Formats: sequence, structure tokens, C-alpha cells
Amino acid sequence: MIGATLDFWFEFASTYSYPAAMRVAPLAKTHGITLRWRPFLLGPIFKSQGWDNSPFNLYPAKGRYMWRDLERVCGALGLPFAQPSPFPQNSVLAARIAVVGLAQSWGEDFCRAIYRAEFGEGRNIAEPATAAAMLVALDQDAKAIFQAAQTDAVKNVLRSNTEEAQRLGIFGAPTFVTADGELFWGNDRLEAALGWAKRQAGG
Amino acid sequence: MIGATLDFWFEFASTYSYPAAMRVAPLAKTHGITLRWRPFLLGPIFKSQGWDNSPFNLYPAKGRYMWRDLERVCGALGLPFAQPSPFPQNSVLAARIAVVGLAQSWGEDFCRAIYRAEFGEGRNIAEPATAAAMLVALDQDAKAIFQAAQTDAVKNVLRSNTEEAQRLGIFGAPTFVTADGELFWGNDRLEAALGWAKRQAGG
Repeated sequence: MIGATLDFWFEFASTYSYPAAMRVAPLAKTHGITLRWRPFLLGPIFKSQGWDNSPFNLYPAKGRYMWRDLERVCGALGLPFAQPSPFPQNSVLAARIAVVGLAQSWGEDFCRAIYRAEFGEGRNIAEPATAAAMLVALDQDAKAIFQAAQTDAVKNVLRSNTEEAQRLGIFGAPTFVTADGELFWGNDRLEAALGWAKRQAGG
Repeated sequence: MIGATLDFWFEFASTYSYPAAMRVAPLAKTHGITLRWRPFLLGPIFKSQGWDNSPFNLYPAKGRYMWRDLERVCGALGLPFAQPSPFPQNSVLAARIAVVGLAQSWGEDFCRAIYRAEFGEGRNIAEPATAAAMLVALDQDAKAIFQAAQTDAVKNVLRSNTEEAQRLGIFGAPTFVTADGELFWGNDRLEAALGWAKRQAGG
């Protein structure tokens, strides 16, 4: 039997990626599923759908609902919640740092710290100082990591992730993708994705 | 203690309203919650958002995902599934008949029968013959009900439902609304809505 795997596609500007990012690792571990964190950018995908902004801003009734629903979802999970301003935030810097960190040991912790700062404390993750503080708290060399995050190699990983996401049919975040190509969109599909990944691997 | 209530806002053209319509009554009963079935039309609401078609047609990646996801959701619930063509269907006739039936005893059964015909068997609910066959199967006088469905009184109920939905902030279906005005959007929010309605009523 090949071990079950699951790809977790996330975008730091995405609201429901916050509870998903907080839940996914312990749940995957419980089910014996190997998780891959796949940062990507929704901007280019939204642009190809004709959107130059978050659909939650373009469609205000949907946006109002989402903020209230996210507050309830976080409340039920015991997660802190604060609506960040501005929204959506520029997530490129955080995503590039995540690419660096996920190839090392501190990537997942960094991702969770960024989500908590953004949607748990309402901080602006586009400010370099925010990401730098996270790195320092993780005992990392912020200056060296910022330099690594601006290399073409890292920029290309993020660009190629985004292209792969679009090829897979991803149109929003979070999205979970199993080894046999099943897509599960949304924090509320995490359990279904884990179940599928397990069955697909014969688990 | 006032008994808990929940409004179930649904639209016959809405895909995820199908599993919700099949699940909602037994679950509400289990929780001791009084359910009100509220048919409305999404067309005018979508138009006010600038859409002249289903977002699942306007955004093909989202549409492809939705059909696959709906198939999986129905599979997990043991519900038959067939993608109807055309989509979305004109739901005005079925919605007007539902208004008639929900003021009598056969409304909920009619709603479930329409959803099953549309998304369980892929039939076209815009055809009067489809609705007529459902009514006959429910031992109802199809001719008299079709006449009642075309009266101004019934048309006005449906119009006023749609206006109320928009005032409540509803932007999609299914939506569950508690007595204290909390909105829960989507089949996958049904359990959360029932829990909220119960707590709100002190249950």
C-alpha cells in the first residue's frame, strides 16, 4: 500500500484558508496522511475570471455573510478572529517566504503565524515588519530569508505553483487535491478530502 | 420557552438546495425545530449582482467543480444524482405550485419530488407535464392547482418572498435563517443552522 497523500493549496489573502491552515496538519496526522503545503496566488486566477478584486468585495451581500460566517466558524474552533483591513491583503511577500520555509523546517509554523496575525489579530501581512517578526519568533534569520524570498528561484516556484493550480481546475482557496486528482474546495470540505485520500490509498 | 424555528429558503434551480431539501425536514424534526419552507427566485437577486446566468455557467472551473462535488455529496447521502440539461432550469412554475402546496398539506412532498426529478433523474422541471405528474402522484388535482398557481395572489407571494430574501441579505440558495436573523448559506451549513436555532430558543 502506498501511503495516502493530500495537497493543501492555500493563499494567504484567503479568509477560509485561515481555519483550514489551523486544522489541516493535526487532522492529516491523525489519519496517517502525508500533507503537502502548496502556496499559490489567487490574483492571476481571479483575473482570468474577470475579477480585479476579491469576490467578497465585488459582491457585498456575499462579503457581509462571509465575515459573519468566518467569525462563527472560528468561534466554534476556538480560534481568535479579527477582520483585517485592508482586505484582501497583498500576500506575495508572505507566500514567497512560505516557499523558502516549506523547503526547510519552519514553513508550516510560519504559515500558521501569518494566518493568525492576519485573521486572528487583524494585522497587515503585506508589511515586511509583520513577516520579519514572525521569523524572529521562529528563531530564524529574517534578513537572510527576505533575501532568499526575492530570488528568481523562489519567485518561479510560486509562479509555477499558481500555474499548476489553474491547470488542476482550482478557482478558490483553500483547495485540497488528492493523488488521483479529486478537488475539494473550502475549509468545510477538509474532512471529505481526508476521507477520500485515505480510501484512494486503500487505507 | 418559545419553540425553535428555522426558515429554509430554497430555489428549485439551485443545485445544493437538492440535498438540503432532502435532509432538512427529518433533521429539524429530530431537533424539535419548526421549519418553514420559503420558496423564492434567485434570478432577480443574481441580476442585481450583474449576473444574467448561473455563476456555475459564468465561471466554468467553478461549475465543473460544483457538479463533481454535488455528485459526491449525493453519493454520500445515498441520493440519486443526474446532471439536468438545460441548466439552470426555469423554476417559476414549480415555485408557484410550491406556494400553493405549502399552504396545504402536500407542499413539502411536492418540493422533494421536484428536486428528485430535476437533480436525481435529470428531468426538465420547466415542463408543465413534469409538475403535473408529481401532483398526480401526490393524489392532487393538477388542473385546479395549475390554475391556482397562476393567480395574482400566488404570484405575489413568490415575488414578496424574493424581496424579503433580498432584504435579509440572501444571495444564494439554500439559505437557512434563524428567528434572530442569522444566515447560514449552503447545504453544508444546515447542521450549524439547526444548532443555532436551538440555542437561540434556549433549547
